[in-house]
Amino acid sequence: MTTRPLLAAQQGDTPRNPLLRGQGLTLDELPIRDELRGEQPYGAPQLDVPVALNVNENPYPPSERVVAEIAAAVADAARTLNRYPDRDAVALRADLASYLTADGGVGLGVDNVWAANGSNEVMQHVLLAFGGPGRTALSFAPTYSMYPEYARDTHTAWVAGRRAEDFSIDRATALAAIEEHRPSVILLASPNNPTGTALPLADIAAILDAAPGMVVVDEAYAEFRRAGTPSALTLLAQYPRLIVTRTMSKAFALAGGRLGYLAAAPAVVDALRIVRLPYHLSAVSQAVARVALANADELLAAVQQLRAERDRTVEWLRAVGLRSAESDANFVLFGTFANRHAVWQGLLERGVLIRETGPDGWLRVSIGTPQEMAAFQAALVEVMR
Amino acid sequence: MTTRPLLAAQQGDTPRNPLLRGQGLTLDELPIRDELRGEQPYGAPQLDVPVALNVNENPYPPSERVVAEIAAAVADAARTLNRYPDRDAVALRADLASYLTADGGVGLGVDNVWAANGSNEVMQHVLLAFGGPGRTALSFAPTYSMYPEYARDTHTAWVAGRRAEDFSIDRATALAAIEEHRPSVILLASPNNPTGTALPLADIAAILDAAPGMVVVDEAYAEFRRAGTPSALTLLAQYPRLIVTRTMSKAFALAGGRLGYLAAAPAVVDALRIVRLPYHLSAVSQAVARVALANADELLAAVQQLRAERDRTVEWLRAVGLRSAESDANFVLFGTFANRHAVWQGLLERGVLIRETGPDGWLRVSIGTPQEMAAFQAALVEVMR
Repeated sequence: MTTRPLLAAQQGDTPRNPLLRGQGLTLDELPIRDELRGEQPYGAPQLDVPVALNVNENPYPPSERVVAEIAAAVADAARTLNRYPDRDAVALRADLASYLTADGGVGLGVDNVWAANGSNEVMQHVLLAFGGPGRTALSFAPTYSMYPEYARDTHTAWVAGRRAEDFSIDRATALAAIEEHRPSVILLASPNNPTGTALPLADIAAILDAAPGMVVVDEAYAEFRRAGTPSALTLLAQYPRLIVTRTMSKAFALAGGRLGYLAAAPAVVDALRIVRLPYHLSAVSQAVARVALANADELLAAVQQLRAERDRTVEWLRAVGLRSAESDANFVLFGTFANRHAVWQGLLERGVLIRETGPDGWLRVSIGTPQEMAAFQAALVEVMR
Repeated sequence: MTTRPLLAAQQGDTPRNPLLRGQGLTLDELPIRDELRGEQPYGAPQLDVPVALNVNENPYPPSERVVAEIAAAVADAARTLNRYPDRDAVALRADLASYLTADGGVGLGVDNVWAANGSNEVMQHVLLAFGGPGRTALSFAPTYSMYPEYARDTHTAWVAGRRAEDFSIDRATALAAIEEHRPSVILLASPNNPTGTALPLADIAAILDAAPGMVVVDEAYAEFRRAGTPSALTLLAQYPRLIVTRTMSKAFALAGGRLGYLAAAPAVVDALRIVRLPYHLSAVSQAVARVALANADELLAAVQQLRAERDRTVEWLRAVGLRSAESDANFVLFGTFANRHAVWQGLLERGVLIRETGPDGWLRVSIGTPQEMAAFQAALVEVMR
């Protein structure tokens, strides 16, 4: 197993100019905001391992046919790269609207869709417009660990209620939290990360009925949901303050392309256009995403394979005596372990990198190829011995 | 002259689903932040005209050789687009450091450089780390019109002092404003937009000596500066709280690629890494920018042509009896006109789009090809008749 050097080591390899002042300056000596002191940049270690099942990536790269289409589309875009891109990304948003209309069964147009560099920039736009000083964002933990950072960086107060033992959201608990905190924004991940569990639409609707502000349903993993699990897109017709976010990172295998998006009422999109940085989406990003959308059939076929592999993984984990959360995502939360770090470390020593995240005692494994999952299972059996 | 439809019209072309609630909802009915009510998304109208000299784009597209290199590099990146990009963009930052070292004459390493989607995202990172509630950003107007938006969206108080009649910054005025407002961040554009004027290093140094916080010198147009105008990069050795921002949009003709960057002490870069969204720069953006940097010689040769064309434009404007600010950029501020809007409109009717910006009575024209500048001059002569 080779290990990709972390940034600090890489930076150490660069010769520093001893004459350049500031090289010895530390972060503590800078006038950084107080709440950022001692904070670390967000992100899992980027290690180079044989089996990487730690950041919920799709294990299937695009086919050479799609690669060639991407190269051709980018060459086209490159011929006018001296010009600014379409600030409103209208063609891309129209393609996304068509895709969502097919997936969610509700008619959406370009004015219902917003896009940005990853769903985390989409979420930042939401909190810039609807959160901020004097306002509160509410979610229910365990959930996506970036949410508190979005709140911190937009100066939105952050409140995390608790999910139930089975990672569902108890309706009475949710309504009490809404009544107590009067949140401007409620963030509901469904399927939830890191648990994999989806929320029943009736629970989302009950929260929407009680919410005094915006409700975001983060459907980053929606395409992996099991048959019979509906998307919150179907609620848009009833709830104008509902926002449903998606990403092309997972189902479209486009994590490197950074394209997140959302569906909402046109007035919500208008609000986000006020706070976005101008020209936030490059001409190249727009072109690459459009190629991926034009090849949705091929890319989504792999999603079917991953769903089946996910269901097999859950079955296997339970068969060997472990607990596994219900999963509608491309990952599985499993456990529980008295010393989860030892299990994580043991897997890493066998070339399998998973994520040490979620409630105490649990671990999260992303769904890879059948070969990768076999390696994970073999390594886990060894570690548990 | 054809006119590219604006977003509102384009959205009107999309059939709306009458069953989808929220279509009739207005922005005023949403719980948007109060300070955003009535605001418009930033940006010049994107009109399709024969001669576009309004957003300081570089008129020279990349050569077919560079286009082919971009396509090849993106094809390479596309083969692993299912994986997240290098979160720290180390290879790109190393290339940027080498380029700045060559341009600025001071040794810079990867740990001195930060990059993001356009210099406006770079600036947002600076204000997220060093601005925010209870803090003040100070600049000197007329200057780049996005600065107040960066401040608004990071909840940083915004103070704009005045530049002198010749668009320089009077040192006593600057020091008095610093003493009065104790800004956490000072933003100095040099060459300044929309005036084109560069600041003497001695003035920047005096401001650095007095500043209680960070000082950002925005050198988006630095490569266009005239011989003898030094870059603030040469001050980094003395001032650890100095940040010098750049962009690849202008000199590298990469406006569509969205790549801004900065040079600073390594601890400053560490601070920005805390507030950046993870994986903010796509694998494709990183690949495209690296190709442009590898072809710096070709791309910067066009900069020499543009500088010469800029100087000829200033001469011509003065020869026909107009005033023109000193310009170290790829645009020229000229005037003055009793009714500048009529002049702007008259040019547009003749197929020449410039920018109605800057102090009353002035207009800004970007430097295009010799043919485009001839069209601008012919149209202006007609309009002034």
